[in-house]
Amino acid sequence: MTGSDFAAWMAAIQERTEAALARFLPEPGIAPQRLHEAMRYAVLGGGKRVRPLLCHAAGALTGADPQRLDVAACAVEMIHAYSLVHDDLPCMDDDTLRRGKPTCHVEFDEATALLVGDSLQSQAFLLFGEHRICDDPARQLEAVRILAQAAGSRGMAGGQAMDIAGTGKNLSLQELELMHIHKTGALIRAAVLLGTHCGVPLREDETEQLDHFAKCVGLLFQVVDDILDESASTATLGKTAGKDAAQNKATYVSLLGIARARELAGELRERAEAALAPFGDTGRRLRELTDFIVTRKF
Amino acid sequence: MTGSDFAAWMAAIQERTEAALARFLPEPGIAPQRLHEAMRYAVLGGGKRVRPLLCHAAGALTGADPQRLDVAACAVEMIHAYSLVHDDLPCMDDDTLRRGKPTCHVEFDEATALLVGDSLQSQAFLLFGEHRICDDPARQLEAVRILAQAAGSRGMAGGQAMDIAGTGKNLSLQELELMHIHKTGALIRAAVLLGTHCGVPLREDETEQLDHFAKCVGLLFQVVDDILDESASTATLGKTAGKDAAQNKATYVSLLGIARARELAGELRERAEAALAPFGDTGRRLRELTDFIVTRKF
Repeated sequence: MTGSDFAAWMAAIQERTEAALARFLPEPGIAPQRLHEAMRYAVLGGGKRVRPLLCHAAGALTGADPQRLDVAACAVEMIHAYSLVHDDLPCMDDDTLRRGKPTCHVEFDEATALLVGDSLQSQAFLLFGEHRICDDPARQLEAVRILAQAAGSRGMAGGQAMDIAGTGKNLSLQELELMHIHKTGALIRAAVLLGTHCGVPLREDETEQLDHFAKCVGLLFQVVDDILDESASTATLGKTAGKDAAQNKATYVSLLGIARARELAGELRERAEAALAPFGDTGRRLRELTDFIVTRKF
Repeated sequence: MTGSDFAAWMAAIQERTEAALARFLPEPGIAPQRLHEAMRYAVLGGGKRVRPLLCHAAGALTGADPQRLDVAACAVEMIHAYSLVHDDLPCMDDDTLRRGKPTCHVEFDEATALLVGDSLQSQAFLLFGEHRICDDPARQLEAVRILAQAAGSRGMAGGQAMDIAGTGKNLSLQELELMHIHKTGALIRAAVLLGTHCGVPLREDETEQLDHFAKCVGLLFQVVDDILDESASTATLGKTAGKDAAQNKATYVSLLGIARARELAGELRERAEAALAPFGDTGRRLRELTDFIVTRKF
């Protein structure tokens, strides 16, 4: 399924995303310099860029312009990067390693890391204020709404709060799923929706199908993350392995065991791919990405 | 100058702002409940609402609709409230008292306070995605840009970074001013600009005048803050008095002495009021607010 063509496409999107992020972040020479250096440190030169990949792949469904997709992809990635910086802070997960490098507050300091996260969030919305992803400005405002909803208390940040509330407790599978739908799923869904948003509007039934795909892929991503967290090494992951178990957090593996978690990943992949069926060949990259998310080793 | 009519106007704006904020924040009963409770704790029931007052007062210049002004005022106030929550965290100013109540991380916990700030920022942009402040959606996108720029690394968050970098150093008056133009001034300017943004567009020369007013009022606010921090009590302020001196931070009072700081406040007030002259009677509330900012005791 996923061949060298996909690998080349993925590398090309990762490369253009890196270049676009470098362009959309304030230059390190602009005051306040240390903050701008730290923002670039937190965002550039690392990460699989799963959300930008999903955004570009989804854009293929609506014939979206790649330069517009860069804007949407970078806005989503900046929100993701801010959440990692804040999540690594001592008052949250207190982690020292991220994307194979010292975390932002270790490399700089806690106060700077706090402001890096805050500033990256503003910068994401600034992108939508400064660069058009659709001709119709009302539709662009809808993109602002999608991103803000996905990032906020009923999206990603809310998922973080559920994660904290659930630590050390016996979560049910349903509670774990609700947490992940918010914590990771909301922004992955936004990446997919905003990707299609850059092109010709989908029909309502198509949007529903895609929404179902995005939900399955968001959960799939998390199930695979939990499996890797249990089975891969810190060196391979570029972040601390086995963290959830050490922090007494429920995971798909701790609740289901690794064999059943692998089965669940297989089921979610099937559901995700079924949701893409109506899109035919335009859904190819999304299908390949789903395979990649299942088979990734880091 | 400022009479009982102004006091009644101010009370009415504060009251409608409180009601609008309560409406625009997620209900405390919605999951994640503790986060939503904490967001409401951090925003509701306190504060002078200087930025919403400036927003409504500026709206008078362009005949803006009060309900639209509520949206703009609440978005700005949510950004302000998030900055206070993060600023009070142990890794920043480590403060325990705000608006006469325990700070958010004291009342809840650090991780929750971090997420409260993050979520309030998203919520501010969500407001602009969900509620129109102008008929023209392109103009509304411009409002997103104004708010994001004012909040981010070249605005408020950048000012915080300059503040940290300057702590314990001998700042020049120019460096202190640059810091405050970012830290407090940027969002005060946004409050004024977004207020006018809700109504009929100003001419370019009018916008420039108003921009000059906003800059003067932003600095004026800070100079008076520094004077109060030196001379008023913790009980009166509702926040820890004398904090800047204790943290070895430069202030207008530490650099100029209290007498010269008072003179500077008088000069800035004159410049602010001169900038309002072309607006005649429509600038009345802004003029009265400027007086209030100078003469306030808390």
